[in-house]
Amino acid sequence: MPVLSILSRNDAQFDAKISHILSRGQSQDQAVEEVVRTILEDVQQHGDEALIRYTSRFDNLDLNATGLALNGGTIEACRSEISTRQYQALERAAANIRSFHERQKRNSWMEQDPVNGNILGQRYRPLDSVGIYVPGGKAAYPSSVLMNAIPAQVAGVERIVMVVPTPDGYVNPAVMVAAHIAGVSEIYRVGGAQAVGALAYGTQTIAPVDKIVGPGNIYVATAKRMVFGRVDIDMIAGPSEILIIADRGADPRHIAIDMLSQAEHDELASAVLITDCEELAQKTAKALEDELAILPRRDIARKSLESYGAIIVVPDLLEAARVSNQIAPEHLELSVADPFWLLHAIKHAGAIFMGYHTSEAVGDYIAGPNHVLPTGGTARFFSPLNVDDFVKKSSLVYYTPMGLEEVARDVEILTAMEGLDAHGRSVSYRVRK
Amino acid sequence: MPVLSILSRNDAQFDAKISHILSRGQSQDQAVEEVVRTILEDVQQHGDEALIRYTSRFDNLDLNATGLALNGGTIEACRSEISTRQYQALERAAANIRSFHERQKRNSWMEQDPVNGNILGQRYRPLDSVGIYVPGGKAAYPSSVLMNAIPAQVAGVERIVMVVPTPDGYVNPAVMVAAHIAGVSEIYRVGGAQAVGALAYGTQTIAPVDKIVGPGNIYVATAKRMVFGRVDIDMIAGPSEILIIADRGADPRHIAIDMLSQAEHDELASAVLITDCEELAQKTAKALEDELAILPRRDIARKSLESYGAIIVVPDLLEAARVSNQIAPEHLELSVADPFWLLHAIKHAGAIFMGYHTSEAVGDYIAGPNHVLPTGGTARFFSPLNVDDFVKKSSLVYYTPMGLEEVARDVEILTAMEGLDAHGRSVSYRVRK
Repeated sequence: MPVLSILSRNDAQFDAKISHILSRGQSQDQAVEEVVRTILEDVQQHGDEALIRYTSRFDNLDLNATGLALNGGTIEACRSEISTRQYQALERAAANIRSFHERQKRNSWMEQDPVNGNILGQRYRPLDSVGIYVPGGKAAYPSSVLMNAIPAQVAGVERIVMVVPTPDGYVNPAVMVAAHIAGVSEIYRVGGAQAVGALAYGTQTIAPVDKIVGPGNIYVATAKRMVFGRVDIDMIAGPSEILIIADRGADPRHIAIDMLSQAEHDELASAVLITDCEELAQKTAKALEDELAILPRRDIARKSLESYGAIIVVPDLLEAARVSNQIAPEHLELSVADPFWLLHAIKHAGAIFMGYHTSEAVGDYIAGPNHVLPTGGTARFFSPLNVDDFVKKSSLVYYTPMGLEEVARDVEILTAMEGLDAHGRSVSYRVRK
Repeated sequence: MPVLSILSRNDAQFDAKISHILSRGQSQDQAVEEVVRTILEDVQQHGDEALIRYTSRFDNLDLNATGLALNGGTIEACRSEISTRQYQALERAAANIRSFHERQKRNSWMEQDPVNGNILGQRYRPLDSVGIYVPGGKAAYPSSVLMNAIPAQVAGVERIVMVVPTPDGYVNPAVMVAAHIAGVSEIYRVGGAQAVGALAYGTQTIAPVDKIVGPGNIYVATAKRMVFGRVDIDMIAGPSEILIIADRGADPRHIAIDMLSQAEHDELASAVLITDCEELAQKTAKALEDELAILPRRDIARKSLESYGAIIVVPDLLEAARVSNQIAPEHLELSVADPFWLLHAIKHAGAIFMGYHTSEAVGDYIAGPNHVLPTGGTARFFSPLNVDDFVKKSSLVYYTPMGLEEVARDVEILTAMEGLDAHGRSVSYRVRK
């Protein structure tokens, strides 16, 4: 039996399938919350001592011996542990990411009324400091370091702090090199909810930051949610997903590989094909089998496809767009002859990969746009990580005597409607004098 | 004894005073969380029926009799309950707010590489739907309706839903008129955590929204925090604050009134003056007494000043800016001879009111910038409510065969470093074929 059977838009299971995909990974676990709350309070009260204690327990590492900070010497040493070609690939990716994010920067502005002289404006300033959470061990991705740190660097953030667990003392050299390339200024070898606590509250060694970004397990995500408000955080990231809209011109083998490039991430990942071509659907189902057979991470990928994969046949591409809008996918491939036409019908998607030659992996690694994207349907309201996330705005208001005179009566009326007398008086007293 | 004594930067109590001001209103109450969790689950499960039950209990109103929605007829009737001059003032405020926020809109962009033909871009689209929470009863502010709804309207949001409790059935006409002016498309007479639940999960009558904004009490704020991720929310708002930096040219009476225009809001509000002029400090302390004596809301204002007010004398204005940066105030007045010079030293502030003639109230009501601002030190990383808050971005990537060829080797190297084979294969298979 093939890993995926083919659904049509009118099948009875269709709606259930969509909501099954959308609801995966939406657990807010009260037991986890209790654990995280305890850890956060512990770090807030005991600082470094708590970090050392948790790192010994969870990461099997004695920070008294190694020190909390990873110093320049260690980072230098990491440089020699990766090849020149690997280094070059990281630098090229970084250059493209930097160049794309430079385009997101905005100018502060002020505008003066030529008659009364009032000035209004909006000023942008980078955050002072940002903390980047990087998962350790096997799921340590140098590309993720680039994607999280470079937008902060482009925004002008002076202090970029990375926390990364080093279980059993293992330091991932590629992650260190990526941090160096991306302008990270401090690195601490802690992870989990305790690392989030250290970034939010500060400890003797780690000064607190203004914002915490980066992916992590449920403990990290819960901790970020709990410190939100004391510091800013990026979006709540869930498991990853791809949706591919393909027409009869698409190569089924390409589609199958692209679906697997999502499914191989983890068992909660979702890969969905929507097509107006029954033949493509069948050929892709077959190609998935062939490709699964030779994929190193096939067990994970098969499980992901079985649970959250789908091949859906629809009457036309506009209907495909409608289904896609229901899912609001993190990654959307428009593997169709005219992707720029179909784009108009796409309302919600984190990143859109257009045309037969644009595989998602190009965007994940090298094209330049960020791979930190809204998941689980949140592309309805969240955006890719971007330079705005590391900048704050201030409004500017400058009023002249003439300008104040002109609005005085309106302000008095409005403040009286709300019963806030001193507000009104702050204008009327200035004007009448 | 005057309501405020004068502190100097070197006083022993100085640091304690600052952290006392910063830590007010930072309670996350576990008991409240339990109550809110129950209400949210109830609304999720029972929909309208739960809304009707809670509204009967908390607002003393039978929604079976009145209906959940406030219809056009009621809104029309409200129009005749306020004066033409009041209506005009609301319309002028709305026009200024609209004009300022229009300047925040951004264009989507695409850029093509002239050699390989690759296209990268960023697309902006408004959210489909937004819910605005408006407090009811005595704290119902039409200006707040304008400030929350107009940025959504300018962003292009089609469905703007307002929820407002109407305790004992009282409908505030000014709030209804403001909603009408600001383009609100649906109004429901529910409040509290149950209203937040309805907006997040939807009920039989109220379709769910993508984002919830607007101020509320601790139950509303806690509910918003809990549904964050399922929908987006605006920042977590705390009690309001003003910080005034003034030099010897400032009028002590103006300063006193401006401090009171913050202090009259509520007992948790904070009003702080920092000046390099001892004489101004003393005269302001005296003026505060005089103004308090004639202020209708003097009991609230006095309590606020006693708890969270301060007059601080510093050696020079740059030192004043440094103290201000420590507090990162929601509202900052630069009541000095050359506010545009002092501006460079200000790092964190929600809105900055510049010069002797710009009272905060001008910005609160009529100037155009938003009065929904980050409080409690969060201006370090949060921004005024703005059009970006109602827009989401999508990244666009279009690669040509030549473009893909150029990056193929780099992608293979990077994906191999992360052990994600299908990712690499999605590029190499396309290129080699």
